[in-house]
Amino acid sequence: MFKYTLVIHGGAGTILKTDMTDEKELAYHTALEDALTKGSEVLAKGGAAVDAVRAATVSLEDNILFNAGRGSVFGKDGSQEMDASIMDGKTTMAGAVSAVQHIRNPVELAYAIMTRSQHVMLNGKGAYDFAVLNGLKTEADEYFFSEFRHDQWIQMQGSDEAALDHNVIVKDKKFGTVGAVAVDMHGNIAAATSTGGMTNKQFGRVGDSPIIGAGTYANNKTCAISCTGHGEPFIRAVTAYDVSCLMEYKGLSLEQAMNIVVHDKLMKIDGEGGMIGVDAKGNAAMVFNSEGMYRGMRSSNGINEVKIYK
Amino acid sequence: MFKYTLVIHGGAGTILKTDMTDEKELAYHTALEDALTKGSEVLAKGGAAVDAVRAATVSLEDNILFNAGRGSVFGKDGSQEMDASIMDGKTTMAGAVSAVQHIRNPVELAYAIMTRSQHVMLNGKGAYDFAVLNGLKTEADEYFFSEFRHDQWIQMQGSDEAALDHNVIVKDKKFGTVGAVAVDMHGNIAAATSTGGMTNKQFGRVGDSPIIGAGTYANNKTCAISCTGHGEPFIRAVTAYDVSCLMEYKGLSLEQAMNIVVHDKLMKIDGEGGMIGVDAKGNAAMVFNSEGMYRGMRSSNGINEVKIYK
Repeated sequence: MFKYTLVIHGGAGTILKTDMTDEKELAYHTALEDALTKGSEVLAKGGAAVDAVRAATVSLEDNILFNAGRGSVFGKDGSQEMDASIMDGKTTMAGAVSAVQHIRNPVELAYAIMTRSQHVMLNGKGAYDFAVLNGLKTEADEYFFSEFRHDQWIQMQGSDEAALDHNVIVKDKKFGTVGAVAVDMHGNIAAATSTGGMTNKQFGRVGDSPIIGAGTYANNKTCAISCTGHGEPFIRAVTAYDVSCLMEYKGLSLEQAMNIVVHDKLMKIDGEGGMIGVDAKGNAAMVFNSEGMYRGMRSSNGINEVKIYK
Repeated sequence: MFKYTLVIHGGAGTILKTDMTDEKELAYHTALEDALTKGSEVLAKGGAAVDAVRAATVSLEDNILFNAGRGSVFGKDGSQEMDASIMDGKTTMAGAVSAVQHIRNPVELAYAIMTRSQHVMLNGKGAYDFAVLNGLKTEADEYFFSEFRHDQWIQMQGSDEAALDHNVIVKDKKFGTVGAVAVDMHGNIAAATSTGGMTNKQFGRVGDSPIIGAGTYANNKTCAISCTGHGEPFIRAVTAYDVSCLMEYKGLSLEQAMNIVVHDKLMKIDGEGGMIGVDAKGNAAMVFNSEGMYRGMRSSNGINEVKIYK
């Protein structure tokens, strides 16, 4: 009997087996397994979907491998600015944060904005002040520092190029975002997304991750979606909400709607990337139009998979 | 023969005739007429819808009466942070700016982001730097200062309340936003929205105005929409794009779709406010669920109206 499902992603892009060592591959697999375990534990105990996506996303944010939370990339000025959002399909309440620094878990800040403020979206220094006032964990620069990320940034510094992810070569695109969607035992669904943005990003660029409707959307009536990809086309296509509308207004299934958005609508505007989704009936899907997507799924009826490539 | 239509708004909310003097009413009428003239001149010459919505929005931003550009309200810390967005229905390209200071015309900055950057959304200090680099007009604090706005802020300072608009009494809600939508002689449509946010706003709150899909959306296939209202429910409902989806996926007319979103979907989540819309066939509508909405419409086939109340 179906009880719950959790789906996660750790970013999409030009992820090729030929570029990967066994050691690195194992590290990603372990990290994704850990996040699935953290989120599934919540669901197995009868917990809420919104708490499961928080737990899974926190686990990914705490892992230096992914471009979110601890592993966030460096912007043009050497600072690390993070974006995150969360939406609860039961209530359609949402929280989002953009361009925040020194917050250990931006997804928890998005959750605090959703549950403890009158607002949906807070930004920058103001968002940081709200986090401190609400007792969220902050960390000094050292916590977010890794030789690897810093080297990436040093290589790009002085150029006007910006890399969307783990890799410094722009043509070798990787979209560093993490996210989770879940359906719980009570038939409620939720979605969360978190990112450190683009290496060497300039001008306070905001991608789709903190935009409700673009990077994240959840509504029990339709679906919970978390996206990863080239943020600009994802914003223009209102990607996550488009899946919901195709289900609500055209009667498509979750997977049909996700396929149309990812393989047709996004492709037409050079929108490389992917998304994960669930609906309240327990259907789940992971769809992408890039070479790879770090992803995993675990459910009460025995599905337990972690994948990287096509 | 139909050639073009321009629709504008200057915010919605509890706007009552009993609170208005003849002098004030005349000032609003004149300001709205001016903006219609500026935008219509572009359309009458065969100009593009996107240039018409820029011209009309700039006119409203330059007028101290409206909470956008020059007339922006004061935030909690006494600063004026502005948001704006624009979308061209011909290309579905979009530009948006959030939490920017000292920019004379935030809608022009959103347009510069759309046309001269690889990004859709820029934020804060970075957005300001991009504006300066691209030669956009900046202004000192004095330009944005008015006794009226400052008095509003002084009255609210020290409190944790935030007013959504012109009026300091929160229960007397007015949503200070300006916006324009247009269809041009070539059958192209566009939308723009601009705001100074909430008086005494805290924590870097971002409303729906700079969010593509929520406050602004345009696509020649469906509609161009600019919203004004209580930003949080408008973000959660992905308001502007929802109108587009109801047209594209359910085959509803512009006005049917706008009525469902404003009078049904938004009302269910306490989403007070309204929107203006056009489609590529030249249909136009102004729909709101609040007491009033500063609004106007002018078209090549003789429509020329400015209204405030229901």
